[in-house]
Amino acid sequence: MVQKIIGPRALPHNEQGEAFAPSNIALCKYWGKRNSDLNLPLNSSLSLSLGHLGTHTRIRANAFKDEIYMNEQRLDPSAQFSSRLIAYLDLFRPASDCYFRIDTHNNFPTAAGLASSASGYAALAMALNNFFSWNLDGASLSILARLGSGSAARSVYDGFVEWHRGESEDGMDSYAEQIPAIWSELRLAIITVSRAVKTIGSTEGMRRTVETSALYAAWPEKATRDIESIRHAIWGKDFAELGGTAESNALAMHATMLDSRPALLYWLPETVAAFHKIWRLRQDGIQLYFTIDAGPNVKILFEEKNEHIVRGEFDDAEIVRPFVC
Amino acid sequence: MVQKIIGPRALPHNEQGEAFAPSNIALCKYWGKRNSDLNLPLNSSLSLSLGHLGTHTRIRANAFKDEIYMNEQRLDPSAQFSSRLIAYLDLFRPASDCYFRIDTHNNFPTAAGLASSASGYAALAMALNNFFSWNLDGASLSILARLGSGSAARSVYDGFVEWHRGESEDGMDSYAEQIPAIWSELRLAIITVSRAVKTIGSTEGMRRTVETSALYAAWPEKATRDIESIRHAIWGKDFAELGGTAESNALAMHATMLDSRPALLYWLPETVAAFHKIWRLRQDGIQLYFTIDAGPNVKILFEEKNEHIVRGEFDDAEIVRPFVC
Repeated sequence: MVQKIIGPRALPHNEQGEAFAPSNIALCKYWGKRNSDLNLPLNSSLSLSLGHLGTHTRIRANAFKDEIYMNEQRLDPSAQFSSRLIAYLDLFRPASDCYFRIDTHNNFPTAAGLASSASGYAALAMALNNFFSWNLDGASLSILARLGSGSAARSVYDGFVEWHRGESEDGMDSYAEQIPAIWSELRLAIITVSRAVKTIGSTEGMRRTVETSALYAAWPEKATRDIESIRHAIWGKDFAELGGTAESNALAMHATMLDSRPALLYWLPETVAAFHKIWRLRQDGIQLYFTIDAGPNVKILFEEKNEHIVRGEFDDAEIVRPFVC
Repeated sequence: MVQKIIGPRALPHNEQGEAFAPSNIALCKYWGKRNSDLNLPLNSSLSLSLGHLGTHTRIRANAFKDEIYMNEQRLDPSAQFSSRLIAYLDLFRPASDCYFRIDTHNNFPTAAGLASSASGYAALAMALNNFFSWNLDGASLSILARLGSGSAARSVYDGFVEWHRGESEDGMDSYAEQIPAIWSELRLAIITVSRAVKTIGSTEGMRRTVETSALYAAWPEKATRDIESIRHAIWGKDFAELGGTAESNALAMHATMLDSRPALLYWLPETVAAFHKIWRLRQDGIQLYFTIDAGPNVKILFEEKNEHIVRGEFDDAEIVRPFVC
C-alpha cells in the first residue's frame, strides 16, 4: 500500500490550485509493472508530449465531501473513475475531513486511445502542488503523478520525456526527466479506428502479459535498447531511426500481448488496414511510421513536409504538432 | 550443401513410382531453422495431416531432360518452383544423364495457405522410394522429404505427427513419427481470406525472425512445452487443451514475426475479423479455436458436433475431416 503523503506545507493552502498537463504518446512503451501499488515499471520508457492536447485541472477546498467535475459534468462518486481519483486524493488530505472539488477538462476525446489518465493525474499532481504551494521540482511531481497512473509520470513535461524505471523498492528513483531537445518539424496523426472504451484496461493487460507470456522475458532488454536508439535519433534528428524504432517497439509490445493467455489483441480489422496502408506508402518513399498503444487506434509519426500526404490519405486524422505552440 | 544421396538400389528402377501424401497443419509450428541446407529446425513441431487433401505424384524415367507437370500443366523449367524441384531430384539421380518426368496433382488450391510444398515433397520422396524400390521406413522417408521442404517431414504420415528437431549436425535424428491416436470427431475448417501468393516466403520469414527478433529467444522453449500439452490433450481427448494450446502457439509464432525488422505481418483485416468472430463464438460457449500459418488464412479447429455452426457462421469454409476416409 501507498503511504499517506503530506507535503511540507499542507496548511494553509491557496484558495485554488490549477495546472495543465499534456497527453503523451510513448515512442518506447511502458508495459509491465514490478509493483502495482506504486506503479513501478519493469522497463524505462520514452514519450513525446502532445503540446496543447491534454488536461486542465483546478482544485479547491470543499465542504463535507469530494466533488469531481469532468468537462462541466458532475461525476457519480461511486463510479470506478471517481473512486480511483478519491483514493488518490486520500494521499494528500491534511486531515480526514478535508475535501476537494476537482474541475477537470480534457480537450481530446476521452478513451479514444489517448491516455486520459496520463495527462489527468499529471495535471492533478501539478494542481495539488499549486494549491498547497509545495514548489516541487519536476522529478517529485513526476513521482506524485506516477502514483495516480504510471504513464502520468511522463506527462509533467513537454517535448521528449524519459521515465527511468529506477531500482529502489520505494520508487523514489522511478521518475521522468525531460530530454531538452526541440524537433519543430515532428508531427503525429491520430487515426481513430474506434471510440469504444477498451474491455481490458492497461493494468489488467500488463498483469496478464507479465504472468503468462513466455516472450515477455525479452521485452525489458529490448526497451532499453530502443530507448538508446530513440535518444540517438533525437539528438541526430534522424527521423527514420526515430520512427523505425518506435514502430518496432510498439509491435514488440503487441507481440507480448498476443503471446498472453488468454491472448490480448487490441487490434481491429481497420487497425491492420492502417498498418498495411502506412507500409505501402513507406514503400513508395513517404517516410511514415506508426505507433500504437493498448487499443485499436493508430498514431502516425511523420515530418511537416508530408502533412499534405497524411491529410489526403487519412481524412479523419487529428494532426498534432508537439513542438508548435 | 547436401551430399548426393543414392539409395541402396538405384538401378534397376521400376517403370514408374507413385505416392500420395497428405497436406498437414501444424498445431505446434515449425518456425526457425538451425541449418537451411538440410532444413533442420530450431524447434520440434506437431501436426495434423489432412486426410485426403494433399498431393499425388508419379515419377518415371525421361530422356534428355527433366519434365515437370503440375495438374496436367507443363511447368517452365526455369521457374523457381521447377529449379528447386530439379535441384532436389539431383540428389537422387543414379547418373548425371538420368532424367525424370514428374506428374503431380494437388487436390487443394495451391498457395492458398495450405503448404503445397509439404505434401509435394513428401509425395515426391515416397514416389522415389516406390520408383527405386528402396523400401525405406517412415523415419527415412521423413528425412528425405525434409530435404525438400521442412514441413514435408511431417506429411509422410496420416493423423497426428511429431517432428523431432534432433540434435545431430547431419540431421539424421531430425525426422517425424506418427502419434498413433485416432480422434474421429476432430474437424478443421479452412477460411480462405486471400488466394494471393505471399510476398515473403517461409524460409525468408524464418531467417528474418531468427536474425532480428529479440522475442524469438523464448520461442523454442515455448514450442517444447506446447508439444507436451498437445500430446497430453491428444491422449486425454481434451479438446479445449488441444485447441487452446494450438491457438496460443500460432499467436506466439506470429508474435515473433511481428517483432522482426522489418516487421512481418501476414494478417489482413479479414484475418483479424475472423479471430474476433471465433473469440466471440467461444465466449458464447462454442468451442472453436484457430491456428494460422505464415499467411492470412485462418484454420478453425472444432469437433463434429459444432460443424453446423461453423458452416452457418463461415459460409466459404472448406471443412476437413482428418480421420475420416
